[in-house]
Amino acid sequence: MFYEKYYEEYEIGESRTSEGRTITETDIVLHAGQTGDFYPHHMDAEWCKTQPFKERMAHGTLTFAIAAGLGAGDINSKAMTYGYEHLRFPRPVFIGDTLRATFTITEKKPHPRKTGFGIVTERTEVTNQRDETVLVCDHLHFVECQPK
Amino acid sequence: MFYEKYYEEYEIGESRTSEGRTITETDIVLHAGQTGDFYPHHMDAEWCKTQPFKERMAHGTLTFAIAAGLGAGDINSKAMTYGYEHLRFPRPVFIGDTLRATFTITEKKPHPRKTGFGIVTERTEVTNQRDETVLVCDHLHFVECQPK
Amino acid sequence: MFYEKYYEEYEIGESRTSEGRTITETDIVLHAGQTGDFYPHHMDAEWCKTQPFKERMAHGTLTFAIAAGLGAGDINSKAMTYGYEHLRFPRPVFIGDTLRATFTITEKKPHPRKTGFGIVTERTEVTNQRDETVLVCDHLHFVECQPK
Amino acid sequence: MFYEKYYEEYEIGESRTSEGRTITETDIVLHAGQTGDFYPHHMDAEWCKTQPFKERMAHGTLTFAIAAGLGAGDINSKAMTYGYEHLRFPRPVFIGDTLRATFTITEKKPHPRKTGFGIVTERTEVTNQRDETVLVCDHLHFVECQPK
Amino acid sequence: MFYEKYYEEYEIGESRTSEGRTITETDIVLHAGQTGDFYPHHMDAEWCKTQPFKERMAHGTLTFAIAAGLGAGDINSKAMTYGYEHLRFPRPVFIGDTLRATFTITEKKPHPRKTGFGIVTERTEVTNQRDETVLVCDHLHFVECQPK
Amino acid sequence: MFYEKYYEEYEIGESRTSEGRTITETDIVLHAGQTGDFYPHHMDAEWCKTQPFKERMAHGTLTFAIAAGLGAGDINSKAMTYGYEHLRFPRPVFIGDTLRATFTITEKKPHPRKTGFGIVTERTEVTNQRDETVLVCDHLHFVECQPK
Repeated sequence: MFYEKYYEEYEIGESRTSEGRTITETDIVLHAGQTGDFYPHHMDAEWCKTQPFKERMAHGTLTFAIAAGLGAGDINSKAMTYGYEHLRFPRPVFIGDTLRATFTITEKKPHPRKTGFGIVTERTEVTNQRDETVLVCDHLHFVECQPK
Repeated sequence: MFYEKYYEEYEIGESRTSEGRTITETDIVLHAGQTGDFYPHHMDAEWCKTQPFKERMAHGTLTFAIAAGLGAGDINSKAMTYGYEHLRFPRPVFIGDTLRATFTITEKKPHPRKTGFGIVTERTEVTNQRDETVLVCDHLHFVECQPK
Repeated sequence: MFYEKYYEEYEIGESRTSEGRTITETDIVLHAGQTGDFYPHHMDAEWCKTQPFKERMAHGTLTFAIAAGLGAGDINSKAMTYGYEHLRFPRPVFIGDTLRATFTITEKKPHPRKTGFGIVTERTEVTNQRDETVLVCDHLHFVECQPK
Repeated sequence: MFYEKYYEEYEIGESRTSEGRTITETDIVLHAGQTGDFYPHHMDAEWCKTQPFKERMAHGTLTFAIAAGLGAGDINSKAMTYGYEHLRFPRPVFIGDTLRATFTITEKKPHPRKTGFGIVTERTEVTNQRDETVLVCDHLHFVECQPK
Repeated sequence: MFYEKYYEEYEIGESRTSEGRTITETDIVLHAGQTGDFYPHHMDAEWCKTQPFKERMAHGTLTFAIAAGLGAGDINSKAMTYGYEHLRFPRPVFIGDTLRATFTITEKKPHPRKTGFGIVTERTEVTNQRDETVLVCDHLHFVECQPK
Repeated sequence: MFYEKYYEEYEIGESRTSEGRTITETDIVLHAGQTGDFYPHHMDAEWCKTQPFKERMAHGTLTFAIAAGLGAGDINSKAMTYGYEHLRFPRPVFIGDTLRATFTITEKKPHPRKTGFGIVTERTEVTNQRDETVLVCDHLHFVECQPK
C-alpha cells in the first residue's frame, strides 16, 4: 500500500526489523538459475566439503535481493531508490540460515543539485539466527521535500 | 574453471564484455517470487500504464544479480568478492530489453591492513540494446599478492 | 508483522482492497508445474483457439492462491484459517488480466462448540481490470475472544 | 485425453485414488513465490521452532492446488468446474509428508435453473502417509445431461 | 497409475498421440536456469534477430524433456527405460509453437543376453502446429516377458 | 563467447571435464514441473521406500539436460548439434549426488552427402561422486570444414 512521507519527516535513528526468512537449497538453486552463476561455491556440495567453509553458500546477490525484499513493505510514493553504497558480506550464508533485516535511517542531506529533494540513507543490516551480521549496505533513497 | 591471477597481474584498463541477455517477464515474476517484492512497479501492468514509465520494470536487485551472473565466467582462485560500491540504476530496465555487461579494472591498491592482499576495483557497466547505461557499480575484489 | 485483534473487534462491513497483480503466462506455466495440471485449457494455445474462450486461461486454483496471497498482509496472532466456503469462478482469467482482491467482513458468530472462539467470515472478491468478478469465496477465520 | 460422461452416468459412491506426492521444501518456497505469502509459518524455520507445530507447514492453498492437480487426469468434455464447498484443513502438512487424494461422487442433483445440466459433487479427501486427513472439500461439477 | 503389459503384448504399429503443449518463453528461461545453458540462441533476442532463424529457439534438451513428459501417462510396471537412439532435431522450436508427440511401436526383439526380457522400440515424433517434425528419436524399453 | 574451430581441427582423444554439480530435490521438483512427468519414482518418497532403489531418483531427461548444460561453455560458431546416439543411464541419480561430465572426441568423418561438412562425435560421460557412470551418450556435431 502507498503512503506519503516527505524528506523532512525522516528521522535519524528510525528503525524497523523484518520478519525472518530461512534460506533454503531451493533459493540457491533458483538464484543460480536466474543469474547463470553456477559456481561450485553454490552448486557443488562435494567441492565445498574440501573448502574451509565446508558447505554450499548463498550467492551474495541472493542475500542482497532477499534483504531488499524483506524491506519491501508499504511504499512511500514520495521516495524512490537512488542507489546503494558499501555493500559488504561479512559472513557467508548457508542453507538453513534464517535471516532478518534491520533498516535504520542513518543520514539525510539535501540533494546537492536537485532543489526540493533530499537523499536519505537507510542502513540495511542482515543477521542470521546466531545474530551474526551477514550483509550490510547503505540504501540511498531520493525523497521529495515537503511542498512550501 | 579455475585459474590463478595474482594482485600484481591485474592491469588498469583491462576489460571484457559479456554475452547479451534478454530480460523477460519470466525473470521479473521469478524475482518477485524469490524476494517477496511484489511492488506494482514490477507486477501490475495496469498501474504502470498510469505512471510516467508506462510499463512494468525490472527490480534493481534483478538487474544487479543478472549483471553479476553475466560476469561469472572462469574463477580466479586467488580472489574473492570484497563488496560493491556506488551501485546506481541510471535508467529502468523493461521487459524485452537485452542487457550486456562490461567489466573494466579501474583501480587497485594494497589492502590497508592485511599484508599480502590487495583490493582490485572492477567497474561493472550494464547497457541495453540502445547502448543506454542501466546499471553501474564498482565490484571490489580481495586478491592475493604473488608469493615472494 | 503480527498484531492482535480479538473476535469482538471485527465489525461487519470492514473492508480492505489489495494492490493489483497482473497474471502472466509465467504464472500459469509455474502453476501447471506445481500442480501437475497441464490441461489444454491452460497449456495449449492452439486448442484454446478452437474453444469459445479462444485463449489460455488461469487454473482456478492459481487465481484462488493468488487471491489468498494478495490478502496476506499483517498477521493477526489471535486468528487462524478455519476454511473456505462457496468458492466460485464467475469468469475466466486470461493472461494479461490484472487482478485485485477485496476482503470484507460479512458475518461473525460464536463457535458452536468451542467456547471462547468465534468464526469470522471474510468475503473475498477478486475483480479484473474491467471490474468483472472472477472469483468469490468466503474465508472463515477461527478467532479468539477477548479474555474476560 | 478427453472422454464423454453425462450427468446420468455418474453414480454415487464411485471413487478413485491418486498416486502419492511428497511435499517438499521446494514446493513451499515456490508457492510462497507464486502467491506472495511469505508468512513465517511457511518460511521461517526458527520461528516455527517456537510454535506448537515446531516445523514449517505448507500453505493451505498449496495443499489445495496439489490436490486438484492430483485429480487432473483424463478430461470429461461434458463437465466443467462449478466451484468448491466446505474446504477444510484438519491437520497441517509438513515438509516430507506424502499426500494422496481420494475423489468420491457423493451427491448429484439437477441444476435448479439450467435445464439439461446437473451438479455432481465430488468429495476430495487428502491424506498423508499416516492416513491422517489433511484436506477435505466438495468439488462441484457442472455436467451436461444426456441428449434426449 | 500402474498397469501390466508384457513384451509379448506389444504390437508393431501401436500408436498413441499426446495432448498439445505450447512452448513458452517461460519454458526456455526455466530450462536455461535448470541446465546452465544461457547460449544466445535461447536467451538473447537481439542477437537472434541477426541470425537466419531470427528468433530465440528452445534448447534441444527442453524439447526432448517435454516430449518425454508428454508420453508419461500410465506406467507399465513390467517395463523400464533402456535408453534412446537416433535423437534428431529436424527443425527448431520457437516460442509460441505448440507441440504434440506421437509414440509408435516400431520394433521388438529379445534382449541378446538377458533371457526373459525384450527390447521394445517406441519411435517418438514431435510435431508443431504446422505438422512439421521438430524432434524424432527411438525410445528403447526394457520389458519383461510373460512368465511361462 | 564464440570461437572458430573447423572440422579438421578436432582430434580424436581431445577431452575436457566440467565442474561438478549437485543434483538437488529442487532440480527434480522443477523438472517434474517443466515436463509434467510426476511419476512416483521422482515424486513419491514413500513409494520409493518400497522399491529396490529406496529413494527418489532424477528423471533421465534431467540428467541428460544437466549434462548438456555442463558442456555449454564457449561456442564454436563453425559447429551445430546434429543429434545424439546411444543415450544410456547405467545407474540412477539420487538427490545429493554430485555429477561431473567428461566430453571426449571419439570419432570424426566427412558428412556422407553434404560436401564441406563433417560429423564429429563427442562422447559424453557423466559420473557421480563415487566415480560411477550414470549417463553416457554420443553427441554428434555438424562441423564446417576449413575453406580451401
